[in-house]
Amino acid sequence: MSIPFSADRFWDSLERMARIGATPEGGVKRLALSPEDDHARKLLRDWAIAAGCTVMVDRLGSMYCTYPGADPQAAPVAVGSHLDSVPTGGKYDGPYGVLLGLEIIRALHEAGRRTKAPIVMVNWTNEEGSRFSPAMSASGGAMGVIEEAAVLAAHDNFDPSFTYADALAATSWAGTADPARARDFAAYFEAHIEQGPILEREGIPIGIVTHCIGVEQWDVIVIGTDGHVGYPMPGRKDALAASSELILALERIAIETGGMATATRLTLQPDARGNIPSMVRVAANIRHPDADGNARMEAAFRAVVAEVTARRGVQVDIHRVGGYPRVPFAPTLLDALRRAADGAQLKHRDMPGPIPQDALHVGIVVPSALMFIPCHGGVSHHPSESISREWCAAGLATMGPAVIEAAGGLA
Amino acid sequence: MSIPFSADRFWDSLERMARIGATPEGGVKRLALSPEDDHARKLLRDWAIAAGCTVMVDRLGSMYCTYPGADPQAAPVAVGSHLDSVPTGGKYDGPYGVLLGLEIIRALHEAGRRTKAPIVMVNWTNEEGSRFSPAMSASGGAMGVIEEAAVLAAHDNFDPSFTYADALAATSWAGTADPARARDFAAYFEAHIEQGPILEREGIPIGIVTHCIGVEQWDVIVIGTDGHVGYPMPGRKDALAASSELILALERIAIETGGMATATRLTLQPDARGNIPSMVRVAANIRHPDADGNARMEAAFRAVVAEVTARRGVQVDIHRVGGYPRVPFAPTLLDALRRAADGAQLKHRDMPGPIPQDALHVGIVVPSALMFIPCHGGVSHHPSESISREWCAAGLATMGPAVIEAAGGLA
Repeated sequence: MSIPFSADRFWDSLERMARIGATPEGGVKRLALSPEDDHARKLLRDWAIAAGCTVMVDRLGSMYCTYPGADPQAAPVAVGSHLDSVPTGGKYDGPYGVLLGLEIIRALHEAGRRTKAPIVMVNWTNEEGSRFSPAMSASGGAMGVIEEAAVLAAHDNFDPSFTYADALAATSWAGTADPARARDFAAYFEAHIEQGPILEREGIPIGIVTHCIGVEQWDVIVIGTDGHVGYPMPGRKDALAASSELILALERIAIETGGMATATRLTLQPDARGNIPSMVRVAANIRHPDADGNARMEAAFRAVVAEVTARRGVQVDIHRVGGYPRVPFAPTLLDALRRAADGAQLKHRDMPGPIPQDALHVGIVVPSALMFIPCHGGVSHHPSESISREWCAAGLATMGPAVIEAAGGLA
Repeated sequence: MSIPFSADRFWDSLERMARIGATPEGGVKRLALSPEDDHARKLLRDWAIAAGCTVMVDRLGSMYCTYPGADPQAAPVAVGSHLDSVPTGGKYDGPYGVLLGLEIIRALHEAGRRTKAPIVMVNWTNEEGSRFSPAMSASGGAMGVIEEAAVLAAHDNFDPSFTYADALAATSWAGTADPARARDFAAYFEAHIEQGPILEREGIPIGIVTHCIGVEQWDVIVIGTDGHVGYPMPGRKDALAASSELILALERIAIETGGMATATRLTLQPDARGNIPSMVRVAANIRHPDADGNARMEAAFRAVVAEVTARRGVQVDIHRVGGYPRVPFAPTLLDALRRAADGAQLKHRDMPGPIPQDALHVGIVVPSALMFIPCHGGVSHHPSESISREWCAAGLATMGPAVIEAAGGLA
């Protein structure tokens, strides 16, 4: 007997959740631990309790909604994502993965069935990192990647007088559970919109994410020489012209190696209309699906830096300011997803995960799997973020059976 | 008989003036109509009166120190520049031209001689434009290039609650003379440090500036598409990568055509570490010594814009936000300078003036001449701005006789 998951109920819960923090543009603004996030969490808690769950909250505010298993000794299988959004967010980035977990539990509850192991639907706090840096801080804190105290001490990016701990207290989501208990999950599943164009373009509803790719964040500091804009061209050491070469080199290297590289922010000195720029700081982000990809990109970039430095007489320093490791997902769980997709006659493909999700942090410690569904135009973090009902259902039809299987099957 | 100009007295007056607003770094901070500028003006007034001048101040605060001529009907010959500085200014940008005028008058006064026409030493208000935009506003107001009311209404760039008119009132330099009277000068001479490396490099102490070159100021707006930094490279419309191509194109076009082009400021949206830049505003400054040079540079740039726009799928708009016309100087006055330099056995060369000075505004209305002396390393607007005593003296030995000649010679 199989469990009758309801794609319609899943869709309706996504629509209902999207009303909380809905923006006039059709998107969602639900910053972590804001009044809107608080409202969303309460709705999720009510839904979970109605579906037979007990709800536990850890010291970082993450919610664990546990549907009991038949075997009280079995380690739980978790399914989750996040309900918080960026300031100009959409309806699906985050809630899709949380509410897919809810639908699995609802279907079990409605059928009066249990799996061998408990199933835990998780809502991780502050995945987006818009309100509190860094992103994915609660899952990082749970897995020991980030110090719990550092997560709690993070200042509100919009009101630095306020901390994560203050926001937890203000919304009453400061729980007592030890976040480290999440390390004892037997398995972790996360479903997410792709945030890229590949699945839609290829007409494939299911992406099996083999790994989250490694990310490097740099500040590239270029130092030239100040001068009046009336200074002759020969003899200039223009830090912005040099930076422009480096920005284009990053782009070229990414294209040639199959990675991604982006210059995102520039800070100039003296930043005045009459002056040749003497200093430019370029914030750069590089990421590559191959295990040695970032190292290859960095080597190629350093070669360009050496050439530009020598030719232009400028100084260039590369400072690593952040990043994420490359995290492979658990082959057995990925296989379970592939089999479930095959069983539902859904096309699927393997692909790297180019954008960190909570699964990256969890996957460092717990056997984990990340699955993508398409989103229109690859758009995310935008009010126009959207998915089709078919894609929504496909994700449920794939991950539902895989989670049941990982939880030891129906008891 | 020739007038015995004193290069030592000229040098000493430059050193004395540089003590007003002196900075620990060895430079000068003397913003327009600041207490330091007020102090400098009072010293100049005292010196001028002691040298037999009458001092008049116009409604824009510019000082006219008139040494009488023998012929009361003759239109005066003016010599001047400015005493204000940028925040990190040096000792010579401005004062060199003002105090050279003072030395001509002092020498005449000490010798008990007059020229046929009066000689007016001018100190133009707010040449640098650091405190009040635009630069050279008082000379522009005097010549009718800028509305007098607009000059007075300019807000303090460091304290927008304060205007140019407020600053004039606060320092008691709001005069009653009509600035337009300066249009009746028979001739105007300005001596200035080159602010470039050419004269020093060539070992030539005198630059005869044939014209101030035309300047165009643009805002180049590049619009692409937002996206997550994890978005694949194909299909991106990265406004910063496109801007980098345009910045390098400006540089290349300037080098190829013999002009100057500089991207000075960048404004990015969304300006966030996780996002591909979707909008970049590039502030650009182009200038070319040839009459059609800026038009040729613009045509070449627009061709690059068209190619980049088509290839990258971005939108690019060029907005003209300011600039200066090309202003040729008076051939007879330039000849007088050349003859004086030859007479003093000083090497000289013709050259364009790549940086606007007050002489640009005056030269639109009054027959004018601009003369350069070298400065070390081409450095200006910096505490290390410096000249040698020999260059200082060479400028006096050249411009002194030329001014006497233009004023109808000794009476």
